[in-house]
Amino acid sequence: MEKTLLFGAAYYPEYMPYEHLDQDISMMKAAGMNVVRIAESTWSTLEPEEGVFNFSYIDRVIEKTQDADMMVIIGTPTYAVPPWLIKEDPDILVERKTGKAQYGYRQLINLLNPTYRSHAETVIRKLVAHTSGKENVIGYQIDNETKHYGNMGSEIQQAFQKYLEKKFVTTEKFNETFGLAYWSNSIHHWDDLPDIKGCINGGFMAEFEKFQRTMAAEFLNWQAQLVRQYKREDQFITNNLGFSWKKFGADIAHDGYSYGVQPNINFYEASQCLTLAASDIYHPTQDNLTGAETAFGGDVTRSLKDSNYLVMECQAQAFKYWTPYPGQLRLHAYGHLASGAKGILYWNWHSIHCGYETYWKGLLSHDLGPNPTYRDACTIGEEWNKMSPKLCGLKKSNKIAIVVDNHSLTAFEWFPIDKELSYNDVLRWMYDSLYEINVECDVVDINALEPAKYQMIITPALYCISEDMLKRLDDFVKGGGVLISSFKSFIADEHVRVYADTQPHLLQKCFGISCNQYTDPGKTRIKGRQVQYIAELLIPDEAESMADYEHKYWGIYSGITRHSYGKGCAYYIGCYTEKDVLKDLYKAALSDASVPAPELTWPVTVRSGVNQEGALLHYILHYSEDNRTISCPYEDVTDILTGKTYKKGEPISLKDWDVLILEENKL
Amino acid sequence: MEKTLLFGAAYYPEYMPYEHLDQDISMMKAAGMNVVRIAESTWSTLEPEEGVFNFSYIDRVIEKTQDADMMVIIGTPTYAVPPWLIKEDPDILVERKTGKAQYGYRQLINLLNPTYRSHAETVIRKLVAHTSGKENVIGYQIDNETKHYGNMGSEIQQAFQKYLEKKFVTTEKFNETFGLAYWSNSIHHWDDLPDIKGCINGGFMAEFEKFQRTMAAEFLNWQAQLVRQYKREDQFITNNLGFSWKKFGADIAHDGYSYGVQPNINFYEASQCLTLAASDIYHPTQDNLTGAETAFGGDVTRSLKDSNYLVMECQAQAFKYWTPYPGQLRLHAYGHLASGAKGILYWNWHSIHCGYETYWKGLLSHDLGPNPTYRDACTIGEEWNKMSPKLCGLKKSNKIAIVVDNHSLTAFEWFPIDKELSYNDVLRWMYDSLYEINVECDVVDINALEPAKYQMIITPALYCISEDMLKRLDDFVKGGGVLISSFKSFIADEHVRVYADTQPHLLQKCFGISCNQYTDPGKTRIKGRQVQYIAELLIPDEAESMADYEHKYWGIYSGITRHSYGKGCAYYIGCYTEKDVLKDLYKAALSDASVPAPELTWPVTVRSGVNQEGALLHYILHYSEDNRTISCPYEDVTDILTGKTYKKGEPISLKDWDVLILEENKL
Amino acid sequence: MEKTLLFGAAYYPEYMPYEHLDQDISMMKAAGMNVVRIAESTWSTLEPEEGVFNFSYIDRVIEKTQDADMMVIIGTPTYAVPPWLIKEDPDILVERKTGKAQYGYRQLINLLNPTYRSHAETVIRKLVAHTSGKENVIGYQIDNETKHYGNMGSEIQQAFQKYLEKKFVTTEKFNETFGLAYWSNSIHHWDDLPDIKGCINGGFMAEFEKFQRTMAAEFLNWQAQLVRQYKREDQFITNNLGFSWKKFGADIAHDGYSYGVQPNINFYEASQCLTLAASDIYHPTQDNLTGAETAFGGDVTRSLKDSNYLVMECQAQAFKYWTPYPGQLRLHAYGHLASGAKGILYWNWHSIHCGYETYWKGLLSHDLGPNPTYRDACTIGEEWNKMSPKLCGLKKSNKIAIVVDNHSLTAFEWFPIDKELSYNDVLRWMYDSLYEINVECDVVDINALEPAKYQMIITPALYCISEDMLKRLDDFVKGGGVLISSFKSFIADEHVRVYADTQPHLLQKCFGISCNQYTDPGKTRIKGRQVQYIAELLIPDEAESMADYEHKYWGIYSGITRHSYGKGCAYYIGCYTEKDVLKDLYKAALSDASVPAPELTWPVTVRSGVNQEGALLHYILHYSEDNRTISCPYEDVTDILTGKTYKKGEPISLKDWDVLILEENKL
Repeated sequence: MEKTLLFGAAYYPEYMPYEHLDQDISMMKAAGMNVVRIAESTWSTLEPEEGVFNFSYIDRVIEKTQDADMMVIIGTPTYAVPPWLIKEDPDILVERKTGKAQYGYRQLINLLNPTYRSHAETVIRKLVAHTSGKENVIGYQIDNETKHYGNMGSEIQQAFQKYLEKKFVTTEKFNETFGLAYWSNSIHHWDDLPDIKGCINGGFMAEFEKFQRTMAAEFLNWQAQLVRQYKREDQFITNNLGFSWKKFGADIAHDGYSYGVQPNINFYEASQCLTLAASDIYHPTQDNLTGAETAFGGDVTRSLKDSNYLVMECQAQAFKYWTPYPGQLRLHAYGHLASGAKGILYWNWHSIHCGYETYWKGLLSHDLGPNPTYRDACTIGEEWNKMSPKLCGLKKSNKIAIVVDNHSLTAFEWFPIDKELSYNDVLRWMYDSLYEINVECDVVDINALEPAKYQMIITPALYCISEDMLKRLDDFVKGGGVLISSFKSFIADEHVRVYADTQPHLLQKCFGISCNQYTDPGKTRIKGRQVQYIAELLIPDEAESMADYEHKYWGIYSGITRHSYGKGCAYYIGCYTEKDVLKDLYKAALSDASVPAPELTWPVTVRSGVNQEGALLHYILHYSEDNRTISCPYEDVTDILTGKTYKKGEPISLKDWDVLILEENKL
Repeated sequence: MEKTLLFGAAYYPEYMPYEHLDQDISMMKAAGMNVVRIAESTWSTLEPEEGVFNFSYIDRVIEKTQDADMMVIIGTPTYAVPPWLIKEDPDILVERKTGKAQYGYRQLINLLNPTYRSHAETVIRKLVAHTSGKENVIGYQIDNETKHYGNMGSEIQQAFQKYLEKKFVTTEKFNETFGLAYWSNSIHHWDDLPDIKGCINGGFMAEFEKFQRTMAAEFLNWQAQLVRQYKREDQFITNNLGFSWKKFGADIAHDGYSYGVQPNINFYEASQCLTLAASDIYHPTQDNLTGAETAFGGDVTRSLKDSNYLVMECQAQAFKYWTPYPGQLRLHAYGHLASGAKGILYWNWHSIHCGYETYWKGLLSHDLGPNPTYRDACTIGEEWNKMSPKLCGLKKSNKIAIVVDNHSLTAFEWFPIDKELSYNDVLRWMYDSLYEINVECDVVDINALEPAKYQMIITPALYCISEDMLKRLDDFVKGGGVLISSFKSFIADEHVRVYADTQPHLLQKCFGISCNQYTDPGKTRIKGRQVQYIAELLIPDEAESMADYEHKYWGIYSGITRHSYGKGCAYYIGCYTEKDVLKDLYKAALSDASVPAPELTWPVTVRSGVNQEGALLHYILHYSEDNRTISCPYEDVTDILTGKTYKKGEPISLKDWDVLILEENKL
Repeated sequence: MEKTLLFGAAYYPEYMPYEHLDQDISMMKAAGMNVVRIAESTWSTLEPEEGVFNFSYIDRVIEKTQDADMMVIIGTPTYAVPPWLIKEDPDILVERKTGKAQYGYRQLINLLNPTYRSHAETVIRKLVAHTSGKENVIGYQIDNETKHYGNMGSEIQQAFQKYLEKKFVTTEKFNETFGLAYWSNSIHHWDDLPDIKGCINGGFMAEFEKFQRTMAAEFLNWQAQLVRQYKREDQFITNNLGFSWKKFGADIAHDGYSYGVQPNINFYEASQCLTLAASDIYHPTQDNLTGAETAFGGDVTRSLKDSNYLVMECQAQAFKYWTPYPGQLRLHAYGHLASGAKGILYWNWHSIHCGYETYWKGLLSHDLGPNPTYRDACTIGEEWNKMSPKLCGLKKSNKIAIVVDNHSLTAFEWFPIDKELSYNDVLRWMYDSLYEINVECDVVDINALEPAKYQMIITPALYCISEDMLKRLDDFVKGGGVLISSFKSFIADEHVRVYADTQPHLLQKCFGISCNQYTDPGKTRIKGRQVQYIAELLIPDEAESMADYEHKYWGIYSGITRHSYGKGCAYYIGCYTEKDVLKDLYKAALSDASVPAPELTWPVTVRSGVNQEGALLHYILHYSEDNRTISCPYEDVTDILTGKTYKKGEPISLKDWDVLILEENKL
């Protein structure tokens, strides 16, 4: 039984302008912090020249934190390579579609390069051997935000060719699978396979990108195997998985935020070798703080191991538009716990005085003294030190799964509906609509989906899908499940070949609809709201049309359908429109699935779970700058934070950016 | 005398996911189709390895279509090269300003590469020899949408240097012609000619781009010579000429539409070796269907041979924003006939299940069954099978020519007026204004212009022009013609040197104006409308000012002038503004030219011609979603499609997207 | 004592389409012109093949102008290289981050290339030796708009490495200074220094960019040394310094205008070897003519040598949106004199008929005859010929300095506040606000600043600053000066390391404030105006808050502060907002500094100085299309241009774009 929430920061004493270790630890302790993450990007410090190792700063941090009764997570330093290594073998720099990377930035490595692997192995072995015996080292983060880095060099191309030969055996089968006769791209000898950099066949490229992701996951597995040879039983292995970002612009002044499925590594595949799931979660703040990213990132990461996870990085002050309003840092922190986090680490402890991320500000500003944000962290630490046992190990057993799929994401990039609408936009549209009505879900990789676990399955733009999985979904509905699918689901097979029959393939009976045309919406509306990006022209053969399009010509088609099938029910939404329309659909579907929906809705967010003591906790998170009074929806609850007790229907006052944790009192 | 309109589609049985040939032919026959185009991008299928040929799928299509009484057009497969050929000689990939092309996409060939030429010759000879004897093969399309592909490699540069040496003899003459002393670019030895990739001299680059276009035309001529050695007398040679597109974005989700003069090949030059002109014409649909692209593309293509032409590709469903409303597919088809087309082929028969153009949808959706668009095609086929003899061979004898010029287009790119205004924008502004008042014209390349054929000549931004042609235009007006010229006409000579006297060069007397300054319009208006992009400050020395600028300082200048000169009249419009202003100018000029203008105006489009029986036909094309009643403008006509007869002044009801073909009854 | 204002144009007879020299000189004389600048980009004309020189066209210009009593400025032709030189050594082409430049454009030279240097030396020596004895050659312009051209090739990298080794001695010191441990960029051996092209360390890159600027300045110094070996004592050495431009787009159709500090050369450093400062100044015209660029460019250039300067290039007609309204050309010309110019030369005399800058129109249009703009120039020439002695040698002794710093500019690019806000935007915001209230200033490079000369110092975004300079600023205020600093001043040291204490570093006492957080403004307002881009959260420890932020959470912080310190006073503005707010701050500060502020404000611009006769002149420049009457603010003045006399309070009528030069009559 865990008793302590992890609360800390990424810590880079080697970046400090002057000796500050003792003051740092003292300030961390004052803030109630108990853990630091170190070493993950410091290869040139650990091994300043080939074969010469210097772990002194690591030793000092471990020793001082041990003295302070704090814990340490050690990162392997492999995602940023030292200059001497590039000099030894320039081919370590990844070759991308646009050419060879230039040294400087991190994450520009050809992960298949043998020189790189050899030196990485050495530094990993040395580092883990050196530290695994230290009492307060609780685990290892292997690499950081690992991705395939767009690797298109000769090594991966050769490996890919071998993979294809093995998979397809004959070039005829290969040509046919991806339709390579198109524009004369077919080959007769395997060695005629052209350099992939110019390839314009979306299906084939999706296969290659899947292969790239697998290479990145394999690299993590290789690191994990090395670490396992040295680490203690009680030490975990994790990575800091990085989501795809919603980008605003090209530069560091406006960098975006954690948004959706990462195209360049598959989280589920990558996390097989890990013993603890962890990710970094960044989100809009100030007037744009909604909690959606905290919830989404948490639901994804928790679902990887169906267990509590670590928020390895989250924002302190970061960018100018994220400087938190009073109370927001605390709200962030509880938002993570409400999703099932076992703790959080800020990125980073102190703002750095040089280099690329100088203004990705840490908990401390550049003056290294206390500031309003640090003081908010102290409040969190104080509360957590009191309440950790109650807050640790929150468990959920969600009845709803949203299915995600890297392969469909890639296909969506090659076969876009609209340049303004990405796969992740569809995913987040469906996720956020659910979030805003306070219905919790797991976010599950298609390869990990076990339909039987759920009463409702949601598929946002599940474009590519094997016939086997289609049959499992059909069975799910037949057996009593509720399936909700968006436009562009079930279009193509696992090689991104569009199925050559009426859509939705194999599920026409299940949904009771058929479709063979779609259109840009133009002026089309549905339920009075503007349709955007796409309108599939649905024919509700057996289904009930929940809404027809409102348009002179398309009005004869349905845009949203519902069909009772077997013991279950299947909903299809053929268009993108305002979230309110989707929420209405969800409410009907939840009723079909016998999943209750709370009365409260965003900006009052409710997230629930059972703690280690078996108590049911409801986090009430108030994402608003206004004060508000709600009516207690629970029979008899006590707010853990204040000790106040509320009966059903009693008023609960919420301040701006407020948090309550209501524990259900056993009657 | 032709009896049959061609009606069919590009057909790729080799892309089908399963054997579907019999069903396809059966569905085509049911739609009244009679022709397919095959083979134009399938080199890797026809010659899977070097020297090994397999024409079996072609044989099957020819045989099955023969059995079904259908015709076949064979395309040479040279615009997309197989991987084995690139492996044999990587220099086949074109070298552009931005570097060497990467294999994958079509149309990335260095057309001067000898390896490519040698293998292309072989496959052309084999293919034509193999098929020319087949009864139902009616003609050959050589290559496809041929262009110069930005070729800047060493072969074309050497050829260009030789061309320059021959043309200019001395480097002094060469330097002087293009003003190369500027920024120290002049040379003293021919071999010092720098790599053209970095060249910033617009005149010299325009000469090079002209040379690139000539190389592309020469390549077609070379193919035509090969085909002629095998083909039957009755088989035609054509190409599928591709217009410049109006582009919306970079990706396949929003690809634009056929818009104007193609910068990368000269249609007139390229069509010298053809016996039949053909092009592809794509256009906005749904709420944005205006018919303008259909008319423009048709007028350009018909003017190439002054004869009926083939629409080798036109859209079926294509992109999401082109899914046709009921009736629109039929309206498209008649729009092409109204311009003088001898038939149309959809691109393409069936939507492809893999590859780059998966969502450039064909007549059939991916389900390969009937759909609303296919059913509209059946209506067309049914009507055409009944009425082909009356609709074939429509002839026009237009009295108006709009002059187009690739060289001016290139010069306009190097010396832009405004980043928002291209040469093609000016051309389409002048063309569309004429189209919207239902005045028909030829669109004639400057090199093909015979002024004596016309009563009115329009020059949109005819920036570069030789003194010889200027004299011919002067003679045209003197002799009674009406000349209408826009801003930026007659500025520079054939080497893009600005004429060193007052504009318009050599035509000051003809237009009765002079001009040596121009300005951004700012707040300037003319006839109450906002002037955009440019206002040439015209001094109407002898001319009548039809409109002065409305502006505190520029109000002393004229913006539109009219001048009677000899027996004719010359109009000049020195600014870009709303089309209404231009239409008013046209109406005055039509009166001067004694060319009648119809009363009807867009969205009721009228296009006329004489059919093979000598009957005068008026196509009434209704580009509107509304119903409308017009008054019959003709003495006594019969609608071929319905048999209804109308006398002058009688009401004619038009439904949304309606078509009537009114035959004038001989009195 | 100078008697003659320079008035002329850049003149390129070698670009003329036909022999026009006599007519040109005759037209120049008619316009009252007295100087031409020649030869600065004509290397391929002067040395058509290696070692063969031809100065004949230069000789003819010198001879004809001598006969016409005109002067000549000779430019060395080194900024555009002939093709034969590139053929001899392709490495002359500069290697940039994006790769090697392609020959064609000017200014693409690796200035460190020895082949280039050797040939440049020869042509300079020949040219200067050949012309220095000519009576009417008054000076030399070495190179043109010299910059470092993004040089990142091996030569400059090696030189930079040597510079680093010398400066830092040990790699440890080097790593520490720039924080290279970050992302594993630190080195242990100097030779491991990676290729700089991929570097992402802003501080290190700022050091490199400073080095690049020094290399460019060193190149000018090398040229000056060569010229000095031949030139006469009375002949000046100058360059045509080019400002950073405000760019609108990528192409020649919309090219922007002179705007701010040039990132790619340091004007102060570069002008050390010059005997006369000169620059080119281009600015919006027509409705957007404000005079701000004329004033700013003049204040910068005059401050370089604290003396009269030459406007080596200014616009005649130039682009379509600069075609001057009647009177504007004259207003431009007097605007330059009002800043202390000793004359102006148009770029260029005649519009060029070929090449890249065909539509960067000169005083003559392509017709080479008179036009309205030329006629306006004739007015200027006539007036200047009458009044030159009174207008020459205007001196100023400004009490205010605005401090500029290339290094801070570079740092601002690497560490941007906002993608919409550049260093130059902040500079121009502070400069223009002062300009609009008619308070004149010097614009002084940080390296040239002598605080004691001034009563008020303004620092726009002086991001990087040494502790030594900080102490000098502190002393300045203590001693009675007024300091006005914007947000993002005094943040980092001279290696762009953020100071590790509370901001503003070392000046907390001086300003009486402290700050360790800042934010995006969001909805924040100040004095009722919207705050943009940044709001530093100022704590006015000892200072008076002149304005607090208006915002629910940030309202507890100040945005503008004032603090009396020693005998002086320090103002800090922590946010960007409308200029009116800044003008109010200025008015208070001017009062503190005992610097009077005129009553008149823009669009009536006042610029004053003392002429060679000791008379105080006030230029009244009317930047408006309206007529206006002002009240004479001076006791007793005479308008030099009209002879009219005004007493204090008497009405003065201003026409649109009017100019008066009021001489104070000695009482």
